[in-house]
Amino acid sequence: MKDRQDVALVAGGAGFIGSHLCRALLDKGFEVICMDNLQTSRAINLERLESERAFTFFRADIVDPLPDAVTRRRDISRIYNLACAASPPQYQVDPEHTMLTNVVGTDRLLRLAEQNGARFLLTSTSEVYGDPETHPQREDYRGWVNCTGPRACYDEGKRAAEAIAFDFARLERAEVRVARIFNTYGPNMHPDDGRVISNLLCQALSGEDITIYGDGSQTRSFCFVSDMVDGLIRLMEVDMPDSKPVNLGNPEEYTILELVERIVAETGTTSAVIHRPLPVDDPRRRRPDIRRARTLLDWEPRILLDEGLRVTCDFFAEEICARHAEHGGARAGLLLSSPLRTPLAAE
Amino acid sequence: MKDRQDVALVAGGAGFIGSHLCRALLDKGFEVICMDNLQTSRAINLERLESERAFTFFRADIVDPLPDAVTRRRDISRIYNLACAASPPQYQVDPEHTMLTNVVGTDRLLRLAEQNGARFLLTSTSEVYGDPETHPQREDYRGWVNCTGPRACYDEGKRAAEAIAFDFARLERAEVRVARIFNTYGPNMHPDDGRVISNLLCQALSGEDITIYGDGSQTRSFCFVSDMVDGLIRLMEVDMPDSKPVNLGNPEEYTILELVERIVAETGTTSAVIHRPLPVDDPRRRRPDIRRARTLLDWEPRILLDEGLRVTCDFFAEEICARHAEHGGARAGLLLSSPLRTPLAAE
Repeated sequence: MKDRQDVALVAGGAGFIGSHLCRALLDKGFEVICMDNLQTSRAINLERLESERAFTFFRADIVDPLPDAVTRRRDISRIYNLACAASPPQYQVDPEHTMLTNVVGTDRLLRLAEQNGARFLLTSTSEVYGDPETHPQREDYRGWVNCTGPRACYDEGKRAAEAIAFDFARLERAEVRVARIFNTYGPNMHPDDGRVISNLLCQALSGEDITIYGDGSQTRSFCFVSDMVDGLIRLMEVDMPDSKPVNLGNPEEYTILELVERIVAETGTTSAVIHRPLPVDDPRRRRPDIRRARTLLDWEPRILLDEGLRVTCDFFAEEICARHAEHGGARAGLLLSSPLRTPLAAE
Repeated sequence: MKDRQDVALVAGGAGFIGSHLCRALLDKGFEVICMDNLQTSRAINLERLESERAFTFFRADIVDPLPDAVTRRRDISRIYNLACAASPPQYQVDPEHTMLTNVVGTDRLLRLAEQNGARFLLTSTSEVYGDPETHPQREDYRGWVNCTGPRACYDEGKRAAEAIAFDFARLERAEVRVARIFNTYGPNMHPDDGRVISNLLCQALSGEDITIYGDGSQTRSFCFVSDMVDGLIRLMEVDMPDSKPVNLGNPEEYTILELVERIVAETGTTSAVIHRPLPVDDPRRRRPDIRRARTLLDWEPRILLDEGLRVTCDFFAEEICARHAEHGGARAGLLLSSPLRTPLAAE
């Protein structure tokens, strides 16, 4: 397919989306260098990749100087930066590190791109829009972000990372792509990453109370991971008329209550639904305008929510079973947010 | 006045506001440690301070590890961070460095504050409000900032610096103050820093065309530097009910055209007034709501624009004369933006 093997570096490649991206790049014939600090990623995601000859893993934190074996290279043609804890409970554990990951880490990878003449893709986020005042969000919307609040380490970190990336583009130091990723879900999510679909599915599958923050009328859109990875690779590979950001996400909008109904139906759970207060700065609505992606990348999501939920539900059911078997019922709860109280719905 | 001498560190202390702050802190009996990379600051600002026994200067860039002589200390009680190029032509020269100054530099100084148990003050900026949609700007306004544009290295850099500072406050790693500084002017400004008052005064004094960007109907508010320094020290020293940001600036609003009229009157210049296109992302209006500063700091600006312009005009006239004498007419132009074409109005 290719004259010589192209080399892609994926920072955050052991994470949820990163691991799927590494798989897809290997399948397309790339040599893949994966860097990850394993802060929120799972070694099991790597196990499925490490048998591949064209895959190399470095445990490295992009806040620190990059490994010599990476900086020595001059043949990297694609650099994907997916490195950062991405859910509030994870990125708020060490907000200073979250900010530095986005700013210092992105800067290091951009310098590596400059040195290699590589194309650079930053996975930014719908969080740069904050709690948006317009719906759906277009890429030229400047956002409504609280830069003093507890989500700012992530939201402002990503905005700062974008700023650096666009400066590298303006100064022609690197060819840059910026994807603003909206909620994504699928297999390889971490059961306790605190994101809404993993939270709800795990609660439903383990018979725990299903937690809704606020009244559940807030909306989200959910993109299945295979669609997201397809969008990222298209964005990286396509010739762009400009280096402006591109939203990637599924524009189908659901309230959290609608999502809970589908999850209850899919899992057949008998869990109770409880409400808790809305976290600070939680956005009311989130829905991408994907016209730029449709036009420039000829891309749109294909997987329907019910279809994606089914696959994801199967993944979590297996995960929970495996942990249950491995650790025994008494310890399995350590891996979820609270002990398993009823048999798994999938059993 | 004090039992033992308090120690204040001022990063960016050789700059325009920083040099006035160092002077005021010395006058209040502080030992002052000044750090500056002299990127946009002027050695002459230091000459006026270096004769003081209680003043120490380190030429250092806060993007790099701090000097050992600074990190070894444990007796610093106040850290003021004023370090960053502050006008678009200056901070856009090396946007990557601008961003890292704000993020990495602020982080290093916050760690130093944590280590010393020192109180930390960040000089943030009205630029965090971007091109604001509400007037005047209150501290809880989230701003309208383009995170992809050529001003983002500064605007988003400062927003990110605020985010880190508030995380240090939330985690009780340091006691934090954040001042959002609006346009400030006065002696010790750099003649070619590209800010509106220095630009216009130098053009008027040297008989060059006076440049107005756009139609001149955009508004700014201008705070004299002694008022600003008074506000910064009050903010640092007062006990605050919260660590939220505080606007510091003069709420008197002038159009650029009004400012030009006053400058023409003050200097008696015969310069022509010309118009150039508005730069990208230039804000239309800028005016602080200073109710928080009035209430919490018992502070408001005292120096009227005409009074401040007179002092500043005298300062620039002397500067231009000195350079003219030192370098001869032919070279003086190198220090301004273009050659002197007519005798100085002040001569």
